[in-house]
Amino acid sequence: MRALLCDQPPRFVTDHPEPARGPGEALIRVRTAGVCDTDIQLVRGYMGYRGVLGHEFVGDVIEADSREWVGRRVVADINVGCGACEECRLRAGHHCPERTVLGILGRDGAMAERLVVPERCLVAVPDSVRDESAVFAEPMAAALHVLDDVPDSDEYVVVLGDGKLGLLIALCLHAAGRRTILVGRHRQKLALASARGVDVMLEEELPTRGRGMPTVVEATGSAAGLSRALSLLAPRGLLVLKTTVAGNTGVDLSPIVINELRVVGSRCGNLEHAMEVLERGLLDPSPLIAARYPLTDAPRALEHASQKGALKVLIEPG
Amino acid sequence: MRALLCDQPPRFVTDHPEPARGPGEALIRVRTAGVCDTDIQLVRGYMGYRGVLGHEFVGDVIEADSREWVGRRVVADINVGCGACEECRLRAGHHCPERTVLGILGRDGAMAERLVVPERCLVAVPDSVRDESAVFAEPMAAALHVLDDVPDSDEYVVVLGDGKLGLLIALCLHAAGRRTILVGRHRQKLALASARGVDVMLEEELPTRGRGMPTVVEATGSAAGLSRALSLLAPRGLLVLKTTVAGNTGVDLSPIVINELRVVGSRCGNLEHAMEVLERGLLDPSPLIAARYPLTDAPRALEHASQKGALKVLIEPG
Repeated sequence: MRALLCDQPPRFVTDHPEPARGPGEALIRVRTAGVCDTDIQLVRGYMGYRGVLGHEFVGDVIEADSREWVGRRVVADINVGCGACEECRLRAGHHCPERTVLGILGRDGAMAERLVVPERCLVAVPDSVRDESAVFAEPMAAALHVLDDVPDSDEYVVVLGDGKLGLLIALCLHAAGRRTILVGRHRQKLALASARGVDVMLEEELPTRGRGMPTVVEATGSAAGLSRALSLLAPRGLLVLKTTVAGNTGVDLSPIVINELRVVGSRCGNLEHAMEVLERGLLDPSPLIAARYPLTDAPRALEHASQKGALKVLIEPG
Repeated sequence: MRALLCDQPPRFVTDHPEPARGPGEALIRVRTAGVCDTDIQLVRGYMGYRGVLGHEFVGDVIEADSREWVGRRVVADINVGCGACEECRLRAGHHCPERTVLGILGRDGAMAERLVVPERCLVAVPDSVRDESAVFAEPMAAALHVLDDVPDSDEYVVVLGDGKLGLLIALCLHAAGRRTILVGRHRQKLALASARGVDVMLEEELPTRGRGMPTVVEATGSAAGLSRALSLLAPRGLLVLKTTVAGNTGVDLSPIVINELRVVGSRCGNLEHAMEVLERGLLDPSPLIAARYPLTDAPRALEHASQKGALKVLIEPG
């Protein structure tokens, strides 16, 4: 089948073996896959991944052990835990030491005609949620997961970075009723958030003095962004780290100790929660779509997505 | 008067002006001052400090507005807040934006014959607590402050770094009833903790695989130590950062996001709490004393303290 393989550069192939469905797994025909910054990093060597790229998708179940899944439109949790350890039994298995991760670690992803996913990872897409919204379920879940670390308060939360993830986080926090300021470098992208009621500010307009903010979400993925985030926080403030900076960062971390900051890493979230937000119409992420490419043009899609300031690029097997 | 000034190299002088006591301040004759790793860093340019060094001390009040202080043996909180802001009114003023810090920021320290400290920063030393214990009140308060961030649990807390602060933290955690493992590189220093009931382990003997630890306290002050600490933690684990690494660290921070770690900076603590621990005899820090120097030999004392593996060096104006 046709698939996009992680390599330097990424390779589109037409002869990738059909995925073999194991017990408890569902075979899914991909309708649409989204390109994430992590895909760009994987292509650059992050995690040493080799396999089919893609972990954001919506698709149709064409085969499954459980009859009720067959024919359903679905998205999926990308973390596939062992299902047996304490982490998997008590929680979602996102930190299972034996986990594979769709399109990231030891398991083929969704930039292909078909993929297999364990049924326990599937989340059904209600009829009212269109593909161009449902394909955002995975990054939206990650964005909403920020709320698990940010205490209920009427104080402002600063989201630093107006990339795809930063925009989604700002929109999600705003949809959840939090007072949110999105700080970025692109007037056009800030306008996108501003039009939906989020307060926005150009990074160059940030005050250089003042008491500092109680909560900052770092979503720039850059060492400079991390330094900036640390400098924005008030003493005992909370920094939620959403993005990994590959390799060494060279950031002066002394403000963490001097100002007794708290830093929390935040990765994947709950896709059922994201789907509920979409179903209730609290947030429409589809304006973040920049372009759609057929799967045969997938390398070009990745190139587009890796351009500075690019929003969400979709890949459609058709 | 005689004093040790922060400079490169540090300068012992005999003509430093007598400290001028302002309203609400106490004039103190220094009995003993301790050398901290921060002093070594200050001499290397950290904080750009220029003034009398020294923030760990015990002394006698010789003048004060309040009669009851005069003649008392005291230690002091090193953070001198404005006394009026929210931070000072509601808390100890450790994060007052206008603060001076004894021997570190805008206020002469204790490596001198005399110094002035606001009365509100003083903590009386009970007769039963000897000078060689009381001089540890400030670093002990910082060590005990770790307990404010480490949840009550019977799980092990790893303290990484067997320097002065690491040893004190391990002894304090142990005295507070926490199961503690001190990890270091010096058999002799580990033996010091081990003799007082703390579990110890050489860094080279740390397991390289496993589930990871729930809580690690970083007290090495090195970039390598921080990397090691991040690698030791279980998913959602807690890292308490006690030491600042001056300049850029070059540490790969991606484990914070991937493993959703929590990092908490921890600086100064409550000296009354430390004095209570000393008075109750829960901990005797005096075996950590490596050497005593007269104030006239203060540069040599700092040289001694900056040697690899040196324990607590005291400076006595005599």
